[in-house]
Amino acid sequence: MSNLHELILASFNSQGLMNTLGASLAFVGEGEVHIALPFSKHLSQQRGYVHAGAITSVVDSACGYAALTRVAAGADVVTAEFKINFMRPALGERFLAVGRVQSAGRLLSVCTGEVRAFADASAQYKVVAMMQATIVIVTG
Amino acid sequence: MSNLHELILASFNSQGLMNTLGASLAFVGEGEVHIALPFSKHLSQQRGYVHAGAITSVVDSACGYAALTRVAAGADVVTAEFKINFMRPALGERFLAVGRVQSAGRLLSVCTGEVRAFADASAQYKVVAMMQATIVIVTG
Amino acid sequence: MSNLHELILASFNSQGLMNTLGASLAFVGEGEVHIALPFSKHLSQQRGYVHAGAITSVVDSACGYAALTRVAAGADVVTAEFKINFMRPALGERFLAVGRVQSAGRLLSVCTGEVRAFADASAQYKVVAMMQATIVIVTG
Amino acid sequence: MSNLHELILASFNSQGLMNTLGASLAFVGEGEVHIALPFSKHLSQQRGYVHAGAITSVVDSACGYAALTRVAAGADVVTAEFKINFMRPALGERFLAVGRVQSAGRLLSVCTGEVRAFADASAQYKVVAMMQATIVIVTG
Repeated sequence: MSNLHELILASFNSQGLMNTLGASLAFVGEGEVHIALPFSKHLSQQRGYVHAGAITSVVDSACGYAALTRVAAGADVVTAEFKINFMRPALGERFLAVGRVQSAGRLLSVCTGEVRAFADASAQYKVVAMMQATIVIVTG
Repeated sequence: MSNLHELILASFNSQGLMNTLGASLAFVGEGEVHIALPFSKHLSQQRGYVHAGAITSVVDSACGYAALTRVAAGADVVTAEFKINFMRPALGERFLAVGRVQSAGRLLSVCTGEVRAFADASAQYKVVAMMQATIVIVTG
Repeated sequence: MSNLHELILASFNSQGLMNTLGASLAFVGEGEVHIALPFSKHLSQQRGYVHAGAITSVVDSACGYAALTRVAAGADVVTAEFKINFMRPALGERFLAVGRVQSAGRLLSVCTGEVRAFADASAQYKVVAMMQATIVIVTG
Repeated sequence: MSNLHELILASFNSQGLMNTLGASLAFVGEGEVHIALPFSKHLSQQRGYVHAGAITSVVDSACGYAALTRVAAGADVVTAEFKINFMRPALGERFLAVGRVQSAGRLLSVCTGEVRAFADASAQYKVVAMMQATIVIVTG
């Protein structure tokens, strides 16, 4: 595990909400972070699908941590805003939120994210949500 | 309690995520719905504030239910997308998400929402987040 | 005319696009700016309404100048991003874009905007679009 | 030229704004449309770059026409909303707006777009803006 992965894992583990949702850090790469979320009734909306808020929470964290992989040591990130489209019901056995840096400025980072729904253990998925986020880079 | 309030309360209570977050339905009016969220460490991000995802979840639900107050009996609503700005850290003892209908079309409803942070039991608050959402009206 | 109004008018007049669209600066107040746009066939989309891009251009400028009314002397503003909903066709004889500061931070300003369509010279209007924008404050 | 290309070209040519901005239809494919925009002082903001509104106008049209390539014959499209990030100043000799369908539903289409800035006649470019848009499909 790289230093960067360890740093992000420590931050992730200190996020009460990620633990409450049952999410886990699945991948940390240069400019890209994945977060896994298994289905649970505790995350549902009124029809039994996963609530848009839970889907949003994991992809927001994935985008934030993706941005964090590209900042200088010691800097931190804060989400200024994002926009998310929900293209189909969040139906599935498990979900994977993928956050990617699209533009890394000195002050702001622009990231995109998507959430993939898997019906079973196979690699086939459907994209249920797409995010475009603006992250502020906070230095010392 | 009005029929509309009862209908929305029943739907709200069936949302596993709202229960998981500790949120409660605080007000249902024509075109406006409030959801209350007490602070909890289970909702935190890495610095101890409430995670943007939890803030987003309650204001998304508030916007969706606000839209639901304006549709014909039997119709339902689904969030197509939203955009949310986080203006300051979600610091407080309790939060109130306020969703309001701005435009109620036949097919789409546009809502705005805000999340207010209260430091104590007084009525003074700061707005920590603002949402603009597009809700699809699903008939029959 | 206040110094602030003069400053913004000079900037507005140097925007080639505002002149190309036929827009004019209609009001400058603390945290609020209005831009007027008369209907013209030169601004149309394929059905003859005003194109979403023209509507967006004037409300983007209104938001940016609203933010500018709240920054320190010598600072400038740049639009980082915005989101805009189009609630009904932009039909009318004239339009007014209203930009307002909702939150003025040290680094970022969050503004909302709306575009009002007037069918005639009366004061009655319909809101055809709503914007939520993030503006970067550039110092030095 | 395909029937689809002809259909979209006819619609494009009827958009007064595209003509006013000096934009032209550069490519029509299945789920993807490009619009070219040469630099002009008539499109500038106060610092001489191309105004965010002009950049937005061409990528909004590119997204809408991309959506149109995927609807049934006789259906039309209307932009419900979009979000756009401006990552760097729109500096260049010419610009290309690229719109792509990401999800084509029965009712709504989700598209992404980007605007590329070219400093000269070479193929090298920088992405100056990214859009995520929701388009309504209008039938009958």
